[in-house]
Amino acid sequence: MLDYTEQIDFYLKRLFPICRSITGEGNRETLRILQEIIPLIIKEYPTGQQVYDWTIPKEWNIKDAWIKNSRGEKIVDFKCSNLHVVSYSVSVHKTVQIDELKPHLHFLEHLPEAIPYRTSYYKEDWGFCLSYNDYQCYFNDGDIYEVFIDSELKNGSLTVGELLIEGKSKKEYLISTYICHPSLANDNLSGVIMTAFLGKELQEIKNNFSYRIIFVPETIGAIAYCANNEKIMKKIKTGFVVSCVGGPGKYGYKQSFNKEHWVNRFIEQTFHENRIQYRTYPFDIHGSDERQYASPGFRMNTPSICKDKYYEYEFYHTSLDNLNFINAETINDTLDFYLQIMEKLDKNLTYEKRIPECEVMLSRQGLYPKEGGGLIPGETTTNELDTLLWLLFYCDGRTSLFEISEILHEPMNRIYELAFTLEEKKILVRTEPE
Amino acid sequence: MLDYTEQIDFYLKRLFPICRSITGEGNRETLRILQEIIPLIIKEYPTGQQVYDWTIPKEWNIKDAWIKNSRGEKIVDFKCSNLHVVSYSVSVHKTVQIDELKPHLHFLEHLPEAIPYRTSYYKEDWGFCLSYNDYQCYFNDGDIYEVFIDSELKNGSLTVGELLIEGKSKKEYLISTYICHPSLANDNLSGVIMTAFLGKELQEIKNNFSYRIIFVPETIGAIAYCANNEKIMKKIKTGFVVSCVGGPGKYGYKQSFNKEHWVNRFIEQTFHENRIQYRTYPFDIHGSDERQYASPGFRMNTPSICKDKYYEYEFYHTSLDNLNFINAETINDTLDFYLQIMEKLDKNLTYEKRIPECEVMLSRQGLYPKEGGGLIPGETTTNELDTLLWLLFYCDGRTSLFEISEILHEPMNRIYELAFTLEEKKILVRTEPE
Amino acid sequence: MLDYTEQIDFYLKRLFPICRSITGEGNRETLRILQEIIPLIIKEYPTGQQVYDWTIPKEWNIKDAWIKNSRGEKIVDFKCSNLHVVSYSVSVHKTVQIDELKPHLHFLEHLPEAIPYRTSYYKEDWGFCLSYNDYQCYFNDGDIYEVFIDSELKNGSLTVGELLIEGKSKKEYLISTYICHPSLANDNLSGVIMTAFLGKELQEIKNNFSYRIIFVPETIGAIAYCANNEKIMKKIKTGFVVSCVGGPGKYGYKQSFNKEHWVNRFIEQTFHENRIQYRTYPFDIHGSDERQYASPGFRMNTPSICKDKYYEYEFYHTSLDNLNFINAETINDTLDFYLQIMEKLDKNLTYEKRIPECEVMLSRQGLYPKEGGGLIPGETTTNELDTLLWLLFYCDGRTSLFEISEILHEPMNRIYELAFTLEEKKILVRTEPE
Repeated sequence: MLDYTEQIDFYLKRLFPICRSITGEGNRETLRILQEIIPLIIKEYPTGQQVYDWTIPKEWNIKDAWIKNSRGEKIVDFKCSNLHVVSYSVSVHKTVQIDELKPHLHFLEHLPEAIPYRTSYYKEDWGFCLSYNDYQCYFNDGDIYEVFIDSELKNGSLTVGELLIEGKSKKEYLISTYICHPSLANDNLSGVIMTAFLGKELQEIKNNFSYRIIFVPETIGAIAYCANNEKIMKKIKTGFVVSCVGGPGKYGYKQSFNKEHWVNRFIEQTFHENRIQYRTYPFDIHGSDERQYASPGFRMNTPSICKDKYYEYEFYHTSLDNLNFINAETINDTLDFYLQIMEKLDKNLTYEKRIPECEVMLSRQGLYPKEGGGLIPGETTTNELDTLLWLLFYCDGRTSLFEISEILHEPMNRIYELAFTLEEKKILVRTEPE
Repeated sequence: MLDYTEQIDFYLKRLFPICRSITGEGNRETLRILQEIIPLIIKEYPTGQQVYDWTIPKEWNIKDAWIKNSRGEKIVDFKCSNLHVVSYSVSVHKTVQIDELKPHLHFLEHLPEAIPYRTSYYKEDWGFCLSYNDYQCYFNDGDIYEVFIDSELKNGSLTVGELLIEGKSKKEYLISTYICHPSLANDNLSGVIMTAFLGKELQEIKNNFSYRIIFVPETIGAIAYCANNEKIMKKIKTGFVVSCVGGPGKYGYKQSFNKEHWVNRFIEQTFHENRIQYRTYPFDIHGSDERQYASPGFRMNTPSICKDKYYEYEFYHTSLDNLNFINAETINDTLDFYLQIMEKLDKNLTYEKRIPECEVMLSRQGLYPKEGGGLIPGETTTNELDTLLWLLFYCDGRTSLFEISEILHEPMNRIYELAFTLEEKKILVRTEPE
Repeated sequence: MLDYTEQIDFYLKRLFPICRSITGEGNRETLRILQEIIPLIIKEYPTGQQVYDWTIPKEWNIKDAWIKNSRGEKIVDFKCSNLHVVSYSVSVHKTVQIDELKPHLHFLEHLPEAIPYRTSYYKEDWGFCLSYNDYQCYFNDGDIYEVFIDSELKNGSLTVGELLIEGKSKKEYLISTYICHPSLANDNLSGVIMTAFLGKELQEIKNNFSYRIIFVPETIGAIAYCANNEKIMKKIKTGFVVSCVGGPGKYGYKQSFNKEHWVNRFIEQTFHENRIQYRTYPFDIHGSDERQYASPGFRMNTPSICKDKYYEYEFYHTSLDNLNFINAETINDTLDFYLQIMEKLDKNLTYEKRIPECEVMLSRQGLYPKEGGGLIPGETTTNELDTLLWLLFYCDGRTSLFEISEILHEPMNRIYELAFTLEEKKILVRTEPE
């Protein structure tokens, strides 16, 4: 893999200031910039479309917003941070008493320097977020303030980005990340950028499987994508939800709903191979878009590899989750880790013997190294031959190479190499079990 | 539930003296009296009918029976206890030497005051049962006795009582009890009366499921009922065999043949909720009519909740299992316990999400209590919301509410209430898995 | 069982000197001699026939072979031991320098008195095997030697022997042994002779199941047999590969590939019943023809009972595995052991109740020993009755008698006898589950 640190850094800086939400121009701009990295197809789902139990909301765009004190000074200014405005705030322009304003102000007493991140997607309302320090400094009982939000809620559309990388097999894995958060760095600008470069690398590989990479606003976007691509999505069984991959803390992974699913063992094995200590988070009904993909109608296994995981770090959903909190190099490391997993996953084929009955005549293939007379263990057999024979024994068209490597306690790469050699020699043929 | 103690006491006294057997007028009279409590349908299966491997025997009725000593004194008298005559004894009237009489006399040396209970259903014979004290007092070597039994074996029928309580679903649970024992109180007059009041209470409830309550003579009656209702009985998977519910000892339950079946966990949970200590008896091929219902042709899971269980108490199958041994209040308690189980069982529905794909839009339903911005565990989420989300996650149309409550380690009632709320809101719909 | 020790001894001596290989006259002669014991059908599969991944090779026969030293003395002579020639050696007659000869000489430094056993089936070559002692004694640097092999490789056929013993059921068990080894006693002349006598005994029994007994050259012979009898072989699920049954060491058995398969428990139980200590060898992809039968296309469970197992004894595949190493009495003992297994296996039927619904009326059948009145445990019931009732409970048409004996912790013979009694009384009927 190339070292993408510099490019990641470039895009972090470029994408961080854009005001993203579940709809709006900020999302489109973000996706257009990502098109510089990968050939994303941008799709629009119109306002009002019924997507399962949900309706695609009006499109929200915002031009400006501020609060002025009685001296006409801007004490809160959207231009300084798009977190200052509660996402989906409606337009407002009036002079209000402090008492009327207070319910519309959001701050965190326990984190006095941080602007919290708040949304009001499905209830028409308006509000400002600010640091507790600013609140104490600028807001006084009895004062009068001028509030101004110049936003628009109109019939428009919800925007998603999609890249399908087709492999030899039509069997798809899903890679999903969410683009709806405004200026928050770890959650989830890190994931958005990493996913773009993951897609770039996956395009370079001659893939065995196909990869569906989607950039959607969280929840409503994932739901809209599922509803508009139901048949395809119901065929997908496994994938990843990319989220929070650039923080300073420990690696961790959130297991998919079926904790016995091989994809979880896959991740753990790769952590071990890289000698990375990690935390395991069991599946939870809170979280990101695995909530949709794991629902009864799909039951997809989509774990997330995080650093640091949402909910788990102090600066989560505040203005302190900014470019100082994360690190392009860290994102590059996680990208490398994800890529290792994808590469192994891409090789996790299922084979059966071209002739399932009886043994293969290995000597004809130059694979049986010696004259006959039987094997005396420790003397004339070899580990290579043993592994090869066991591999052939287990290739029944249903058991995957990863499962065989687990049964044989052999490294996956060794099993993969052997299997590919046997495929070249037309001893093994690929199968596509359900 | 009403307190039925007084009524139970009334019927105990009224039904105890009646001479019941596997056929005969005593059974009809018993069922007719029960009709005062519930609208039983009385069905007759004729003598000679082939029911699986068995044949319905002749109907037996008895008018009188006694033994007189050489002085003409009645020393054993059927009118004092219907246990004095071996059930299904043929008529006899003759004067016999003690030696000829002895093989026809049954008593218990280890329980000298008790008259044992004996039957000879399928071998034409006659006999008397008496206490060992009486035997020693009245029977002497060398003496002559006049024996008299005025009974009748005729082509008639076997009588059963049936009550079908129909619920919203045609899916049935079975409640079966046996009416063939004469003057024995715990085994099983207690069960017969308790079942009648259980039926009465179940009629009052707006049931989700249907309940088939049957009163049959043990073994041959259950077999006859199965043979005459085979299609219906083969669809029933679960139920209860009511037996011995009024004794002074410990509660216990006999597990159904598949000890992993949820009905057994259901009973244990209800014992725990009531803080009742109990014994567990594994399934056995001896016992009551679960022997028929668990046979390969039916494989129904029908546990029994007992107090005290047959075989386990000293007075079992003797005249000491009388109205002094049991207690109407105890029967009322067991009734209450059974009713708790039935009420929970009746709520143990299976649901699926009306829209199985993705999450429900809870905020539209007033079920999502807050503005957006993500959940910070411990701060903005609630236990109620968590349980609701997990419930929705598991409602796949196959997993029952009881199973979900077990997975979530939540009380059943909480899960039930949530599910019913979600059904009302048309978020969940009922399914009827096999 | 008759004591076959004397006959086994007779055939050991008669068959030991014959030069067997994977094809050739020696094999035919061996099978013809075995026809004196059992009516083997001898089948020929022609050179060049494609059998799965393999091709049946040319037929090999050899008349004579020797090495003479420069003084014209025979220092290695095929007539002394057919192990002296590498099996499938092509003809050669020339005078060679010691340096040219050396690559064609095989000996074992660690076992200086033993002639090793070597083959070159699928690579045209020639070679001699000799003891290390002889090598040191007769071969000197700088000397010249005359080598002579008079052999023939021609279009012919591969020879197998087959005996199908038909039982009441068409369901077959396989017994397979290999005939390709020349003068090696334990591996596998012991197995060949034992299998013949096992067949003889199985013919005497009125079998419930059918037995397919085959004598094939190892690997290519088993493969050729499978390919020529594919449909039949795919129906067979269980059997035995007979190998190495006459050695002086410990008993052992190589498990079939599915170690949970009942056939393995069957063997272990029989070892226990005979108080024989034994070793357990897990399934391995090295070994004998279970490699073919367990391949994905067949997945047959065919364990081997050995004494001593191939690979495990010092003299394996050398001239010291001769008639002094083994013992006719030992082979007779193993035969007896195998026969016990076959007899139990032949009784391992699957039954269902003729009437699956409800209980059997045992009193009508004279099987219920007493008057009615209920069972008081320990008093009136009997162990026999309990076992009988449980057996009837489990006879569902799918669970075999062996499995039922395991569930009930009862000796198989007791279960068998009960089941046969119940079959005679038309209470149980045989089923043939897949």
